[in-house]
Amino acid sequence: MTNNIITTRVEHLRSWLRQHGLAAYIFPSTDPHCGEYVPDHWKAREWISGFDGSAGTAVVTLTHAAVWTDSRYWLAAEQQLEGTPFELVRCSRNVVTAAELASWIAEAEAVQPMHHDTGVVVGLDAWTNTVDSVRQLRHELSQLGMDLQTDLDPTAELWTDRPSLPLNPVEVHPLEYAGRTAEDKLSAVRAYMQRQHVDALLVSQLDEIAWALNLRGSDVHCTPLFVAYLMVLSDSACLYIDERKLTPAVRTYLDSIGVSVLPYDAAAVDRTLHLQYDPATTCAGIVGQLSQSQLSDAAVNLHLVCGESPIQEMLALKNNVEIRGYRSAMRKDGVAMVKFLRWLHQKMENGGCDTDGSPLTELSVCRKLRELRSQLPLFRDISFDTIAGYAHHGAIVHYEPTPATDIALEPCGLLLVDSGAQYLDGTTDITRTIPLGPLTDEERRDYTLVLKGHLRLAMARFPQGTTGTQLDVLARYALWQHGLNYGHGTGHGVGSYLSVHEGPHQFRMNWMPTPLQAGMTITIEPGIYIAGSHGVRHENTMLIVPDGQNEYGSWLQLDPLTLCPIDTTPIVRELMQPDEIEYLNQYHARVREELMPLLDDEDDKKWLIDNTKQWQ
Amino acid sequence: MTNNIITTRVEHLRSWLRQHGLAAYIFPSTDPHCGEYVPDHWKAREWISGFDGSAGTAVVTLTHAAVWTDSRYWLAAEQQLEGTPFELVRCSRNVVTAAELASWIAEAEAVQPMHHDTGVVVGLDAWTNTVDSVRQLRHELSQLGMDLQTDLDPTAELWTDRPSLPLNPVEVHPLEYAGRTAEDKLSAVRAYMQRQHVDALLVSQLDEIAWALNLRGSDVHCTPLFVAYLMVLSDSACLYIDERKLTPAVRTYLDSIGVSVLPYDAAAVDRTLHLQYDPATTCAGIVGQLSQSQLSDAAVNLHLVCGESPIQEMLALKNNVEIRGYRSAMRKDGVAMVKFLRWLHQKMENGGCDTDGSPLTELSVCRKLRELRSQLPLFRDISFDTIAGYAHHGAIVHYEPTPATDIALEPCGLLLVDSGAQYLDGTTDITRTIPLGPLTDEERRDYTLVLKGHLRLAMARFPQGTTGTQLDVLARYALWQHGLNYGHGTGHGVGSYLSVHEGPHQFRMNWMPTPLQAGMTITIEPGIYIAGSHGVRHENTMLIVPDGQNEYGSWLQLDPLTLCPIDTTPIVRELMQPDEIEYLNQYHARVREELMPLLDDEDDKKWLIDNTKQWQ
Repeated sequence: MTNNIITTRVEHLRSWLRQHGLAAYIFPSTDPHCGEYVPDHWKAREWISGFDGSAGTAVVTLTHAAVWTDSRYWLAAEQQLEGTPFELVRCSRNVVTAAELASWIAEAEAVQPMHHDTGVVVGLDAWTNTVDSVRQLRHELSQLGMDLQTDLDPTAELWTDRPSLPLNPVEVHPLEYAGRTAEDKLSAVRAYMQRQHVDALLVSQLDEIAWALNLRGSDVHCTPLFVAYLMVLSDSACLYIDERKLTPAVRTYLDSIGVSVLPYDAAAVDRTLHLQYDPATTCAGIVGQLSQSQLSDAAVNLHLVCGESPIQEMLALKNNVEIRGYRSAMRKDGVAMVKFLRWLHQKMENGGCDTDGSPLTELSVCRKLRELRSQLPLFRDISFDTIAGYAHHGAIVHYEPTPATDIALEPCGLLLVDSGAQYLDGTTDITRTIPLGPLTDEERRDYTLVLKGHLRLAMARFPQGTTGTQLDVLARYALWQHGLNYGHGTGHGVGSYLSVHEGPHQFRMNWMPTPLQAGMTITIEPGIYIAGSHGVRHENTMLIVPDGQNEYGSWLQLDPLTLCPIDTTPIVRELMQPDEIEYLNQYHARVREELMPLLDDEDDKKWLIDNTKQWQ
Repeated sequence: MTNNIITTRVEHLRSWLRQHGLAAYIFPSTDPHCGEYVPDHWKAREWISGFDGSAGTAVVTLTHAAVWTDSRYWLAAEQQLEGTPFELVRCSRNVVTAAELASWIAEAEAVQPMHHDTGVVVGLDAWTNTVDSVRQLRHELSQLGMDLQTDLDPTAELWTDRPSLPLNPVEVHPLEYAGRTAEDKLSAVRAYMQRQHVDALLVSQLDEIAWALNLRGSDVHCTPLFVAYLMVLSDSACLYIDERKLTPAVRTYLDSIGVSVLPYDAAAVDRTLHLQYDPATTCAGIVGQLSQSQLSDAAVNLHLVCGESPIQEMLALKNNVEIRGYRSAMRKDGVAMVKFLRWLHQKMENGGCDTDGSPLTELSVCRKLRELRSQLPLFRDISFDTIAGYAHHGAIVHYEPTPATDIALEPCGLLLVDSGAQYLDGTTDITRTIPLGPLTDEERRDYTLVLKGHLRLAMARFPQGTTGTQLDVLARYALWQHGLNYGHGTGHGVGSYLSVHEGPHQFRMNWMPTPLQAGMTITIEPGIYIAGSHGVRHENTMLIVPDGQNEYGSWLQLDPLTLCPIDTTPIVRELMQPDEIEYLNQYHARVREELMPLLDDEDDKKWLIDNTKQWQ
């Protein structure tokens, strides 16, 4: 893709804008399902601007063009936008606000805010923007005298080589891994609906649909989801999906659980309904389309009710079969990690060269890890693109090596590897920071402080009702005492053969009101990122488990699901407290006990024993 | 007061209810200024029910009567309500919700919720309820088919011996303690008003009025406030107050800062205004009265705007003069505490008897402390009724000894003393838990765990923008690890010769969005309360101070204002971590350094040296 192409696209878009009486068009990075990974079909922002980061918003006016993105992507965006009509606007937060967009457009188009008759109209696609974001944007634009139009989509006309919607087959997720039938899950949803006095629930988040129906797909990168909408009614349910994705077996299955099938773009209602949807995650397009039903059908009287989807919390609470699945998946993943770490250590000791004599690089690490995982039972895919950042690359939080950025590993410094896999019985997510040889004092200190944060939070016992925000500081305290910090959250839920990032609970400084509950998974992944030098992150996925009850209420604690040694050689002994050391030793004893039976290679066994020794 | 009196009052009230067509009347524990301590004039709930706790709501219907209060007062309420028409309803939270009150009334009066024509009307006094609470109650009652009437007050007719409003003289708080002129403060308020596009601000919280005008009074128990309303306009200001409280000097002063005076009940506006008030703290009575202005005056067009008062945050940020004042007040208070602790230790060593041979009791502790403080320069009052709880009384969080509950101190166990004073140059608040002799292992463990929590939070360094909710867990972690907890917040702001409890920031599990800022005061006071056995709380008042700046932003830390030794003899050494011990020793070195020059008694000096020794 050259910049000429982008310039031409922008020119065509501007002709189209003039043709349709629009002053500007906004391209966000979302899709109709509010997903983290967006299928290529919906990457309109990348198409118009050439910027391919996972987060960013592009705006093209008749005279100006800009892309907003956060610090993770500034470097990449600078390079990708060079020579295009787009300027880069650096966001301090994750996303640009509606108010910022509105005032930028007003300035670019020299709108006089006080004249409410300017007739300046801004375009946006209702199908790739949530009801909330459309509402906010409309409000902010109107404050500056502008209007918003959401039913015009330039890509339909101008994006001639647009990738089609994915058509990968859907499969039934067996009960032996799901642990709960779809009928049972739909009953729970209907019980919720009854309590809320609604008789229809629109589900648009893909992980919620996959969970509720015990179906999986492969429409989304590294995540076993399929593109669809689900409407749950009090006596039936309807899946809006491209039928070509359904095998006869899946059709029979859907029939057996009382779910009818309609085309993906056919959502409509045919009677009076109190319908609940979540305005924060449901695109304005489908809500608008459903509202059309009542215009065309006198029997329809649609009462729209806003509310958070109950399914998000249901899927966050894992059942016993899912928990057994995680344990199995994590043991397998631990075996892969042990083999990987031993391989890496060995290679680095022997000069850091691969079998073909070429030096090991970040990409060889990604390949080796994938290869080791893919040999394990029930492996389906990796759960996200492996982050393997050596030395200064470790300081780039979301660094994924490409042939252009790949660097060779040397026998010194730190290699940060954040990786995971999708097994049919569970999803994994683990980060280890691996010393490849001698370290600087700063690297050892940072390694230790991040580890202290990880352990302090991992050891926490807390009363029922506690939220992740109330605990987050435990992972930061040691770093803060040294004037260090990290800019991301400390932990997120992990799906059960679903999304590797799952809500609604999190460890995070920002207020997250969802209490932590027994049966939820959550990662602990504090870090430190020293630009130009090194990065450290230590991540285990944990299960929240009950820890007794007394006059103060019910207690919870965090039980590690992830099973893989943490290298003790970089630890600065003087910075550690006795309870931290004790916990680390207990963890290593458990890792050894659980992984040893799965290893058959004597060298692997010896490596595991060496690397799970009790540390003083 | 006998129960016959209460029964008679309730009968009279019921006649009055019938006369006015009401089915019930609600008596909350608040006053027109949302204060923590309510002047006797507004203690209508106590008058009607006989229950005198600081928090509680009474409701009388034609057939039923009840009092709601939280666990702190269950024991007292049981006793005080015995033989009255009132049943006790035990609240799990601090206050009963509007929804709970509404459904209780509906049930008591057998209201049929589905019939919206029941004509059931509930009474409430708009002057002792905030706009928010009236709104919520009206909503909840209407959900059950009932109406709310807020302009009828039975006390006017029935409470014949009602105490009058306090008439204590107001005095000017000198600039040498306030550190900032009232003109300057009013300018800051007006700058805020301009930014908010409002031209009037109604101030009803008494500490905000006292702070803004540099005035103090003595209308409120232990707190130098005076009853009034303040209206700040863009070009003038008006104090609504009983003029009998103003000396000629104060009148001249008010004149000099451009503040006119009108009667307490005369609030009105005389022109078109955008007026901001805080619906969460402003009583519905005055807002209703102001709204009347436009009915009686064609020139008035009142636009009411809801918003938090900007003064709460302004007064929370102490200026340098106030901070110097705190330091001075805390040194004095430390001297009083040292003399008190030495006196107590000596008495306990000599059999626990006072000079007259009678045994020391909780009340003698209160008297001695007050006596020692009252001899100090600029002492005005204690800042709250001293909590002196020996042994099992220490487990009652808000225990204040009375002649009826007072018990003798014995040479064993723990005495919890939470006390403070109002000095012209600062307000103090300190808790020490004092071993009077041998302790049980449980007492020593609890003493140590609470101390660990105190120290862990006291040591924290944190980035600008952090809130008290994000740090609260640091004070609980050690307790949680042992399955222990406490049911109150961990800390609150402390006024500068103002309220001992000050907002808007707090250390608290519940979400408090106000970030901690340099210049704010805040207490650290974790505790543990073992019913029937003992209580432990360790409290210092801290100042939030800047702690440098780096690539991660600006950092803050907590600097102790309180200067008084913490007894190390009960500490379980094995539970302590090296950094906690180091901090404690540094604190004691500082206490010694700051207090020693103020002591002249050689025995006091020796005691201070002994009790600030470096501890291993």
